[in-house]
Amino acid sequence: VHAVIQRVAPGATVIDLTHNIAAHDVRAGALTLWRAVPWLAPGVLLGVVDPGVGTSRRAVALEVAGTGLHFVGPDNGLLLPAALRMGDISSAVDLLDPGPARPGATFAGRDIFAPAAARLAAGIPATALGELIDPSTLQGAPFPGASFDPGPPPCLRCAVTWIDRFGNIQLGASIGDLERLGSPTAVTVVLGDRTLAGLSVATSYAALAPGQLGVVIDSHQMLSLCLKEAPASRQIALQDGDCVRLSPA
Amino acid sequence: VHAVIQRVAPGATVIDLTHNIAAHDVRAGALTLWRAVPWLAPGVLLGVVDPGVGTSRRAVALEVAGTGLHFVGPDNGLLLPAALRMGDISSAVDLLDPGPARPGATFAGRDIFAPAAARLAAGIPATALGELIDPSTLQGAPFPGASFDPGPPPCLRCAVTWIDRFGNIQLGASIGDLERLGSPTAVTVVLGDRTLAGLSVATSYAALAPGQLGVVIDSHQMLSLCLKEAPASRQIALQDGDCVRLSPA
Amino acid sequence: VHAVIQRVAPGATVIDLTHNIAAHDVRAGALTLWRAVPWLAPGVLLGVVDPGVGTSRRAVALEVAGTGLHFVGPDNGLLLPAALRMGDISSAVDLLDPGPARPGATFAGRDIFAPAAARLAAGIPATALGELIDPSTLQGAPFPGASFDPGPPPCLRCAVTWIDRFGNIQLGASIGDLERLGSPTAVTVVLGDRTLAGLSVATSYAALAPGQLGVVIDSHQMLSLCLKEAPASRQIALQDGDCVRLSPA
Repeated sequence: VHAVIQRVAPGATVIDLTHNIAAHDVRAGALTLWRAVPWLAPGVLLGVVDPGVGTSRRAVALEVAGTGLHFVGPDNGLLLPAALRMGDISSAVDLLDPGPARPGATFAGRDIFAPAAARLAAGIPATALGELIDPSTLQGAPFPGASFDPGPPPCLRCAVTWIDRFGNIQLGASIGDLERLGSPTAVTVVLGDRTLAGLSVATSYAALAPGQLGVVIDSHQMLSLCLKEAPASRQIALQDGDCVRLSPA
Repeated sequence: VHAVIQRVAPGATVIDLTHNIAAHDVRAGALTLWRAVPWLAPGVLLGVVDPGVGTSRRAVALEVAGTGLHFVGPDNGLLLPAALRMGDISSAVDLLDPGPARPGATFAGRDIFAPAAARLAAGIPATALGELIDPSTLQGAPFPGASFDPGPPPCLRCAVTWIDRFGNIQLGASIGDLERLGSPTAVTVVLGDRTLAGLSVATSYAALAPGQLGVVIDSHQMLSLCLKEAPASRQIALQDGDCVRLSPA
Repeated sequence: VHAVIQRVAPGATVIDLTHNIAAHDVRAGALTLWRAVPWLAPGVLLGVVDPGVGTSRRAVALEVAGTGLHFVGPDNGLLLPAALRMGDISSAVDLLDPGPARPGATFAGRDIFAPAAARLAAGIPATALGELIDPSTLQGAPFPGASFDPGPPPCLRCAVTWIDRFGNIQLGASIGDLERLGSPTAVTVVLGDRTLAGLSVATSYAALAPGQLGVVIDSHQMLSLCLKEAPASRQIALQDGDCVRLSPA
């Protein structure tokens, strides 16, 4: 993919955001892009987590007007959360498939997405790469947001979105959601039939005592269940997608 | 290695093709380079999988005339398949060892290959880096090709060359080899004393049904044993180098 | 982090030395930087292994006069060994924290270190990034050096500093330390209550016989316990930080 980009757009600066998304995990990929996108300079974000490669799922290029940001990848929800975080989709293009000229149907990253991304980086307009499509037909985000129940007691419902390499259990709820609970300094977390009462809300891992489980507001202002310098995921059996309820302790 | 290259050839564009080759697996390294090389822009391909580092195995720089491609690394079969995929070797040089000036004998990538690759990238001719050698003396490819037996029944013999991170079992046989079997839409695969009858030949992973084992023509027009969105390698006990026979189903 | 750097210093050449340090392993990070630093071109070395992120541990930028090298990261011992390998610290700055403007307290790499490194790369003086501090107050190296006991018998005491991905057990003792033992061609190694007598000292892995355990002088002129093409760490139960004694065999 890098080599194809350099052939089409020699000298382009290319940043590898990650190669560590688990196979077929579109949700993890979408979250990674969502987390990174506010820090990107204008350019082209190429994302590939693509279990539907070789099927009729569309290959797309999206643009968010006023940001200088393009998004290229499969239309499977991978790109949309990151794009919408930056603004409305001002144009969406269904990328042309070179068809029989391709050496195979299983490596769209190399054969379709990389050439398209490089052409955009080289200044070619998206409309030259395929047909305009209606942004409202794009596949939606592969993860749910938090929902708020005024109670009593007031309660946030959200899903586990990520277990990072430190074993922190990241939740699909933000500091803004926590404010709806009244910005408590401690919360009770219910996971299935298990209740974790009185977890401190902290702004750093180090603010927790050794062995203390807490809720840390992470660097994206999202909530996560954490142990200090240890993987919380070993102490709590949770997986991506599991539901969690939080209420003031 | 990157730092050494930037010191010798400041500003050179460097692409990491992979750092994920298992220790000492020259065959996996050679296959990775073979797969990548058609997509590379003119430049220098530096490869290091080097169990013989510190011995008398040669350090070489190869050139394929007319392609603008140089290959730098150990003379252990790592580079040759990729180079020969692009054309004949027009020159081969045995790289000079700086000898006692080196800080140790175990990191040729940093001390010999990277400086040589950077000098080539900076336009220094290969002949300035060592002595010309006869390309026919280079160590051959570390993996066999497929062999065809007209039968009856007609049959392809080939080896497992790779189990990728998705668990796809890649074979040393191409779509061209499959044509010699009559381009069947289904094949019987014999692995040791086990027979897998009637496997569909597909052009994408998604064309398989969930749980269905099939033969997928991959993005290099090579054959691989695959399950849809699951690792075939967990269902079939095969390792790199194991032999497999394919015949029309 | 890469994206932040490109926004502040567009077109800067950025090299990833490694992303494979285990979580919270400051010692492994410090050793990696120590090993790499002699090969770096003038520039900024950004290091982050930071279990104390969000606490009062300082964020610093160090300079070694005459080398063109700056070091940016947490003041936890990660940077100091690499910096001191190149010379005396000519200036040290406590980096200003942007404070409440930051989106969270847990990602100093993105929010503090990357902007500071990029500004240094863009030519902004370190003194514009924070307050000068006394280099003697910097946190020391997270690993001990070797100690020599004249005996009899003469003996080196050192610690396991690293088990690399090949399973080589690297020791905190150099070829210079070995010279104090009289540069023996074989050594006896004592690990706790276990004695390995008569290990050959070799200058390459390949100089060992298959299955033979030996002491190899590595590419940093440091000593390591190695098996030829096999992980010594599977045969000898040692961990980072364990103590070892070497004496002439």
